Amino acid sequence: MAMQFLSDNAASVHPAVWRAMQAADAPDSPYDGDALSQQLDKAFSEMFGRPCAALWVATGTAANCLALAALVPPEGGVICHHTAHIENDECGAPGFYLHGAKLMLAEGEGAKLTPEAIAAVIDSIRMDVHRVHPHAVSITQATERGRVFTPSEVAALGQCAQDRKLGLHMDGARFGNAVAHLGCSPAAISCDAGVDALSFGFTKNGAMGAEAIVFFEPAVADVIRFRRKRAGHLQSKGRFLAAQILAMLENGLWLENARAANAAAQEIATAAGERLLEPVEANEIFLRLEAREAAVLREQGFGFYDWGENGARIVTAWDSRPEHCTALAQAIAAL
Amino acid sequence: MAMQFLSDNAASVHPAVWRAMQAADAPDSPYDGDALSQQLDKAFSEMFGRPCAALWVATGTAANCLALAALVPPEGGVICHHTAHIENDECGAPGFYLHGAKLMLAEGEGAKLTPEAIAAVIDSIRMDVHRVHPHAVSITQATERGRVFTPSEVAALGQCAQDRKLGLHMDGARFGNAVAHLGCSPAAISCDAGVDALSFGFTKNGAMGAEAIVFFEPAVADVIRFRRKRAGHLQSKGRFLAAQILAMLENGLWLENARAANAAAQEIATAAGERLLEPVEANEIFLRLEAREAAVLREQGFGFYDWGENGARIVTAWDSRPEHCTALAQAIAAL
Amino acid sequence: MAMQFLSDNAASVHPAVWRAMQAADAPDSPYDGDALSQQLDKAFSEMFGRPCAALWVATGTAANCLALAALVPPEGGVICHHTAHIENDECGAPGFYLHGAKLMLAEGEGAKLTPEAIAAVIDSIRMDVHRVHPHAVSITQATERGRVFTPSEVAALGQCAQDRKLGLHMDGARFGNAVAHLGCSPAAISCDAGVDALSFGFTKNGAMGAEAIVFFEPAVADVIRFRRKRAGHLQSKGRFLAAQILAMLENGLWLENARAANAAAQEIATAAGERLLEPVEANEIFLRLEAREAAVLREQGFGFYDWGENGARIVTAWDSRPEHCTALAQAIAAL
Amino acid sequence: MAMQFLSDNAASVHPAVWRAMQAADAPDSPYDGDALSQQLDKAFSEMFGRPCAALWVATGTAANCLALAALVPPEGGVICHHTAHIENDECGAPGFYLHGAKLMLAEGEGAKLTPEAIAAVIDSIRMDVHRVHPHAVSITQATERGRVFTPSEVAALGQCAQDRKLGLHMDGARFGNAVAHLGCSPAAISCDAGVDALSFGFTKNGAMGAEAIVFFEPAVADVIRFRRKRAGHLQSKGRFLAAQILAMLENGLWLENARAANAAAQEIATAAGERLLEPVEANEIFLRLEAREAAVLREQGFGFYDWGENGARIVTAWDSRPEHCTALAQAIAAL
Repeated sequence: MAMQFLSDNAASVHPAVWRAMQAADAPDSPYDGDALSQQLDKAFSEMFGRPCAALWVATGTAANCLALAALVPPEGGVICHHTAHIENDECGAPGFYLHGAKLMLAEGEGAKLTPEAIAAVIDSIRMDVHRVHPHAVSITQATERGRVFTPSEVAALGQCAQDRKLGLHMDGARFGNAVAHLGCSPAAISCDAGVDALSFGFTKNGAMGAEAIVFFEPAVADVIRFRRKRAGHLQSKGRFLAAQILAMLENGLWLENARAANAAAQEIATAAGERLLEPVEANEIFLRLEAREAAVLREQGFGFYDWGENGARIVTAWDSRPEHCTALAQAIAAL
Repeated sequence: MAMQFLSDNAASVHPAVWRAMQAADAPDSPYDGDALSQQLDKAFSEMFGRPCAALWVATGTAANCLALAALVPPEGGVICHHTAHIENDECGAPGFYLHGAKLMLAEGEGAKLTPEAIAAVIDSIRMDVHRVHPHAVSITQATERGRVFTPSEVAALGQCAQDRKLGLHMDGARFGNAVAHLGCSPAAISCDAGVDALSFGFTKNGAMGAEAIVFFEPAVADVIRFRRKRAGHLQSKGRFLAAQILAMLENGLWLENARAANAAAQEIATAAGERLLEPVEANEIFLRLEAREAAVLREQGFGFYDWGENGARIVTAWDSRPEHCTALAQAIAAL
Repeated sequence: MAMQFLSDNAASVHPAVWRAMQAADAPDSPYDGDALSQQLDKAFSEMFGRPCAALWVATGTAANCLALAALVPPEGGVICHHTAHIENDECGAPGFYLHGAKLMLAEGEGAKLTPEAIAAVIDSIRMDVHRVHPHAVSITQATERGRVFTPSEVAALGQCAQDRKLGLHMDGARFGNAVAHLGCSPAAISCDAGVDALSFGFTKNGAMGAEAIVFFEPAVADVIRFRRKRAGHLQSKGRFLAAQILAMLENGLWLENARAANAAAQEIATAAGERLLEPVEANEIFLRLEAREAAVLREQGFGFYDWGENGARIVTAWDSRPEHCTALAQAIAAL
Repeated sequence: MAMQFLSDNAASVHPAVWRAMQAADAPDSPYDGDALSQQLDKAFSEMFGRPCAALWVATGTAANCLALAALVPPEGGVICHHTAHIENDECGAPGFYLHGAKLMLAEGEGAKLTPEAIAAVIDSIRMDVHRVHPHAVSITQATERGRVFTPSEVAALGQCAQDRKLGLHMDGARFGNAVAHLGCSPAAISCDAGVDALSFGFTKNGAMGAEAIVFFEPAVADVIRFRRKRAGHLQSKGRFLAAQILAMLENGLWLENARAANAAAQEIATAAGERLLEPVEANEIFLRLEAREAAVLREQGFGFYDWGENGARIVTAWDSRPEHCTALAQAIAAL
């Protein structure tokens, strides 16, 4: 049987999530009128230490796009890294949800935006109506290269966004992994650092299909409640999505799972040593691997993606089996 | 405790669906690359007796809009009944998914379209570029008034659509209830009668959140696979949606559940007698009920919606408890 | 040769407009940076007695849609009369420009909306996210039935819009004809009565292809400058559009031309007498006319549209030739 | 007075165009039902030696976007050069008209796309639904760097597009200048070379505000007639746009004007000599010019844009005055 390190996006569902979903299988109001959905705002407000509005959706693409829809009008643009998920992996969903708004691509080491990279994009734009002007910045935490923005790095971006009158969105598909890596509070890399809207991912981290869109200015969420319905994302049995998220929040399961995934990645990273193309800060390992070497690993039953020429991406998940990780680490060391 | 007849949209999840979902909690490919998702085309092709392409989505709104997106360009229109769900209950989702295409409203007894009603809409449209022209017809089976199109009624609409070069979409949120009522094959009121795309609903009928978009011309589905992703509806753990649908199809659970809901409705309908505003053909009962009478029922613990003045809507579900139904029937009879 | 009463939309261009356009054929800045375009805000501010922002576009459809784009988000709706031009004659342009926002149709005698008709639409809408909610009202002055809203009628709508927190747009394709009929100030039926955005039509009234979108809250125009460019309506030689509009404003040419068209309509209306289906308040005459009678008129060389069964629409323009009008009046009287 | 070389986009209107417009000021059918508009298909069919459908619009942005709308669905993409007008100078209009379709940027010397550059874009795209896939290529003739694709270069792109099943659009805002430079037939760099849709520009070349969208597969135009109306670009007095275009076609005025602009550019280019950053093949000159030198030229009354650091763009037009061109040539030579 394959030892799977292709992605965390198809990982199994945590038992606590299953239990919560089954407990939710009792009559209640449809859509988000049920008791569980009604608890979300409070749960996230407590986590972030300020009033939040939180909406569930089933996918990260929907979370990102609905979050951005609160910040960007159709004639505007979103500055993001050229490797961003919204640019490369969502089939143009931002163009659909934002009615043709433009993604404006920036550079940055480790798939990380910087104030300088943002400035470089903006400063190249003539101030006239012939150009699309950015209305928001979107960053990914952890990044598409498995890197983590520190609180001060996010704060610098937050300041930059504020100075430029831009909204700041965080694609937190692996937000938990970032918090686990940093050992900081969730607020320290989001609202306290100037983030306006956060896609807080749970699906990769133990849920079945549930993400929270967290708005740190609760009134902003009102229009997005309409947009969610309009996009067909207001599930009638929404209580099952709320149940997943609440289970993930309870007793810090989200953080515990993220730590497990990160630890698994560290074991493999240590074995990879000089091969590493990026510091391993979350649950993704990018490493040099020749085609011949990749073949050797695959023959031993390890599944992972090639990444560019002579490169590979290995992803651990909350449920990566320790024996698989150890085996992979050993196999890499033995190459 | 309330005896709930508000809607079937928040009904509980069938045990067989739970079992199938749990069985799906093993590593597999993400999105719709898993073994279960790959079975859908075959399963529906067998059901309908011809090659079909079937895509899962989590909501009826997404199913309807993605189905229509295959039939209607942005500058076109969709003829539907003025009470249609796509017109009244989806927050303008067709306008979003179809990029501004227009819903063109028709009349019809029992919320049923007829070739005559369609002709009346079309014939009022000048043949020039100043007018929006219809590209499709959308009908609801069972209708928003709990009525069921017979095979010959659908076939007449199918013929009309073909004559007018219009696509034909069926919103089958309660498709199972219609089949259960008619005792016909699923094909008899869909593909055999000229339907091009069917939103086959399972969420109201025992699933957690899963609907199938069935295209009877499989190639049509290709573009919709992109549109589904673009709309954020391609869940990464899609195997759990496929599992729900396959469980509903297995041993005809969808039909069994629909029959149960219909039977429950019949019991209540019989008691309602002269009060009925519509023949009860599926699982919805529309009846005359004065405010005073509605209050009496609610005091006894029955939940339902008022429907216009001196009217009420009662909806049964696959899991309506027999004792609740009997109690409601008796309470109505006793008014 | 035909004596043309089909529409005012293809009327000839006034000599003063030609002169102004030719005078504009000297080097200047492109787009709306030229000296003439820069005068528009001031010219309309003087006309309306308050600060206005005015943008030229070439067509009424663009004017209406860009005006509404300032008032209505994609998930919102626009209440308009079921005969409105935006509903029937713009090929769904509002759906395109407003990204799928919905037109919500109201009734009203003489194609006129009333606060009651608006209330009837709004009051039928449940206050939830499943329904589209209106964000603006659009009225046509003069209406699609050639009727004119009085200042107090517009003010009542303005009050209603304000009470309901709706924007108010006026499609003034024949705004001049309305002012000419009423003998009031332009402000009395627009900004002073609560109108937020006015499509001020000149093309039907002596220009070649130029309309002004007038915003009575100038800051609102800023986003529309981007939307105009984005829609391909920022002509590079915009000075020729500005020239048309300024020529129409100079010495009240717009009002003089509208009066001429109205007077021509009155002559014909007087002859029509009992045949009139609507009071003639602007430059359109709706009258009973049997097919046989219509044929008689057409044989004499008069061009006009049938309007429903046994009805006809006759439109005069600023350049309707007096001898043609007199001839038509006599021909109608002689039927 | 300034000697203007900023752009050809605000050049004056040719006397023959004025005459044609004035001759068109007689009663005729509205929109594109008039005799002049009806001649366009034939006129372009003769020019290109095959059946064409040609639609007028007022701006290049509208022409480009409506042409692309015939080739690219909302979920698709358009490959273009990163300096393309549709990318940089239309305020995101393609995103609006194509409902969120994506522009996919390619590299190329002289702002020219090549089959290799197109292949590089396509080959980087995984074949799955997570990525946007291109449906068309758009090239600019002459390019944004004043360069001209030869017939064989266009044919190579046409072959590449056909091999890849992509549509091919040509933004011909300066199509006349390209033909004038090459001395070839219009067909040689368009339909004969695989171009599907051409934005044939006249506004920069002597018209007031008129461009033709030419479809070499006439049936394709049908849907675009609706899209044009829907975008508010179907002017009611369309005869004035048709008149401009027909006047430009008559006796090859478009070519004569383009030759004049090109010749003016050559005179300046010769003087610029070693300063040239690009070969001058049309009517744009890109040259090295230090800030100090630019200031010297501006003091002498010459108007032009800076272009990057130590660079400038000089544009000639059909009406550039010979004495101004000679003066500029001498001034540059004297630097």
